[in-house]
Order: sequence, then C-alpha cells, then structure tokens
Amino acid sequence: MQVFGDRSSGNCYKVELMCSILKIDHDWVDIDVLAGETQKTIFRKLNPNGKIPLMTLHDGNTLAESNAILGFLAEGTPWMPAAGIARAKTYEWLFFEKYSHEPYIAVARFIQYYQNMPAERVAKYKQCKIDGAHALNVMEHNLSKHAFFGGATPSIADIALFAYTHVADQGGFDLQSYPAISRWILDMKSVPGYTPIRARPV
Amino acid sequence: MQVFGDRSSGNCYKVELMCSILKIDHDWVDIDVLAGETQKTIFRKLNPNGKIPLMTLHDGNTLAESNAILGFLAEGTPWMPAAGIARAKTYEWLFFEKYSHEPYIAVARFIQYYQNMPAERVAKYKQCKIDGAHALNVMEHNLSKHAFFGGATPSIADIALFAYTHVADQGGFDLQSYPAISRWILDMKSVPGYTPIRARPV
Repeated sequence: MQVFGDRSSGNCYKVELMCSILKIDHDWVDIDVLAGETQKTIFRKLNPNGKIPLMTLHDGNTLAESNAILGFLAEGTPWMPAAGIARAKTYEWLFFEKYSHEPYIAVARFIQYYQNMPAERVAKYKQCKIDGAHALNVMEHNLSKHAFFGGATPSIADIALFAYTHVADQGGFDLQSYPAISRWILDMKSVPGYTPIRARPV
Repeated sequence: MQVFGDRSSGNCYKVELMCSILKIDHDWVDIDVLAGETQKTIFRKLNPNGKIPLMTLHDGNTLAESNAILGFLAEGTPWMPAAGIARAKTYEWLFFEKYSHEPYIAVARFIQYYQNMPAERVAKYKQCKIDGAHALNVMEHNLSKHAFFGGATPSIADIALFAYTHVADQGGFDLQSYPAISRWILDMKSVPGYTPIRARPV
C-alpha cells in the first residue's frame, strides 16, 4: 500500500495518524503541491481530481479523499462504529469537517502559515476566521457533552477533526477560548500510536 | 421519521429522491432558509450547525449532512455497497461531491437562480464556473468509462452527484458539452421511483 501525500497537510496527516494508531504498514511518497506535482499528467492518471492524499492498493485500486480513506482503513476496528445510527453520526461529522470546518480552519492556516498573509488574501482570511469560529463553536458544544465525537471512545470523526483543529493556532484561532476542544486535543494526543503532524517545508 | 428541508435545494432533494426510490415513509417539514428559519433557536437545538436537510428518528436521534443521511437510508440496499473498496469508492465520490463539486455547482446555481446575479456576487460566480467545470470534467472522465459512479449499477454516490448536476444549467453550465454526463442524467431519470426536483419558491 502506498500513500501519496504531504505530511504537513492536515488532510494527509489524517491518513498518517490513522496508520500509526492502527499499525498499518505502508510506503509514503512525498508530494509537493506547491511545486505543482498534483497537476502533472502522471499524478492525474492516479487521481483525475488532482488532490492528495491518494492511496494505491496492492490490487491496483486507488482511493482518494482523506475521509473516505479513514473509513476504509478503520473498517472492522473500534475506530469505526459497525452499523446503524452510530456509524451514520460518524459520517455526519466527517461531512461536517469537509464542508463546514476544513474550508475555513485549513484555509486560514494556509493563508497565514504557508502564504504569510499576502494582501490580496486578507479579505478571504477574515471570512475564514468568522466561519471557522462557527465550526469551532459547534465542536465545543458537542465536546462539552461527550468525551469524543464518537461518544465515549474516539472514532475516525475525531481523527478527521483533530487534524486541522489542533493546529488551528497556525491560522490565528485562539484555542484557549474553547476549553472542551482543548481538553479533547490533549486526550487525542495521549492515544496510543499518536504521532505529531510535521512542520511545513521551509 | 421527519425530514426538515427545502425541496428546491439539491442537498434536501437528495433525501427526497432516495426516500422516493426506496419507498421510505417519512413526514416532510418545509424549512425556509432565506427567511432565516435554520438560524432560529428551536432549529439550532435540532442541528447546532444550522443547516438542512435534517432528519429526526423515532428514537429521538437526529442526523444532519445530506450524504450521511443517504448512507443511513441506503444501508443494506443495492444503493450502498456492503463492504471493502466498493464502499470506500462510494464515499470517495460523496466527499468529492461535498468538497470539489457542490461548493461550485450549487453556489453558481444559487447566485444565478435564487439571487439573480447581484453585481457583488459576479466575481464569486465566475470562479464557481471555473471550479465547477473542473468537477464536471472529473465526472465526465468517470462516466465515459462506467455506467454509474457505483460501477454497473447506481449507488448513493449517483444520487448525491445527480442532485445539483442535473440542474447545473440553472447555474449557467452547458450540460450538452458533457455527453457522458448527459447520458447518465437520462439513466438516473429512468430509475424506478424517480421524482423531479421542485422549482424554487417564487
């Protein structure tokens, strides 16, 4: 199994963290998005959408979309509820992450941490701060009632939301304003097999 | 089972169409987003993220996120592959829809069809046309090789992608430029139980 990715990207880190926790053997292939490697023809043959992470399996199948990869890797483990409403709620949070969280929390981080806040991106950054705060409020509301997004034990929903949330300060969010999220971040960091996200390439 | 939604919204229509095809009994509660009903305290108690569609179950559980609802409704039916890579590829397309398709195809439609193209939204509209065309190209590439996103038979990935794609002309996309997508739209409209999306309220 190969994973094509950038270890400082939250979306790719989700896969790295899940593999580390579940002890899944794989080869990691570093991909440099800023150098245009995901737009090259050879990569587009693997993923026509031109995005990382991308996983290739021994049988020749490919799998894109970080949250779909998490579901595939975690099937049959305690990180993925087996059926019914618990499984559906896990996917509810995965789609929340992809639509209401990542486009703001990750993009604010990208503009501040990778792009160093160019003037033409400031308006976009400010809107990300507003919409990202809404996402953090929804998370805080849930984590003030439950230990994890999966309930009493962590699931792939926690992996997905942890990836960009725990480095949200790199996008200018003040995580100390969210006590339940701060508690949950510490809990996630103490999961056996935890591995930290890498710093961006310099 | 209750579904809170707006039948002219593609995200809500996904749930209506799936229930129609699978003959799932439910009560539909009309919600007017433009009138601010999703932001009211009583709705926020059901979904703190303030979005429709939202499903409430007999046991008191709630479920948000259209694509998570599709997965819940279709479990155990031919519309949801049972396990392994086929299931994972289905979710790959669902996350593609939510991240690389809906934010452009649906938003272009919203600006043109609901908002009637206000001057301050034209720049956003033009960017949606570019990014939406990329999403349609990825779809065209797949549908030129396979009958459906699920392979030989349709899955919830087809339901999710059909919702906004088949009305993409309301956002200014020329679907005749995409022969495989056009063929697939006709195939989806001939699925037993098919019901059309409603026009926007006037």
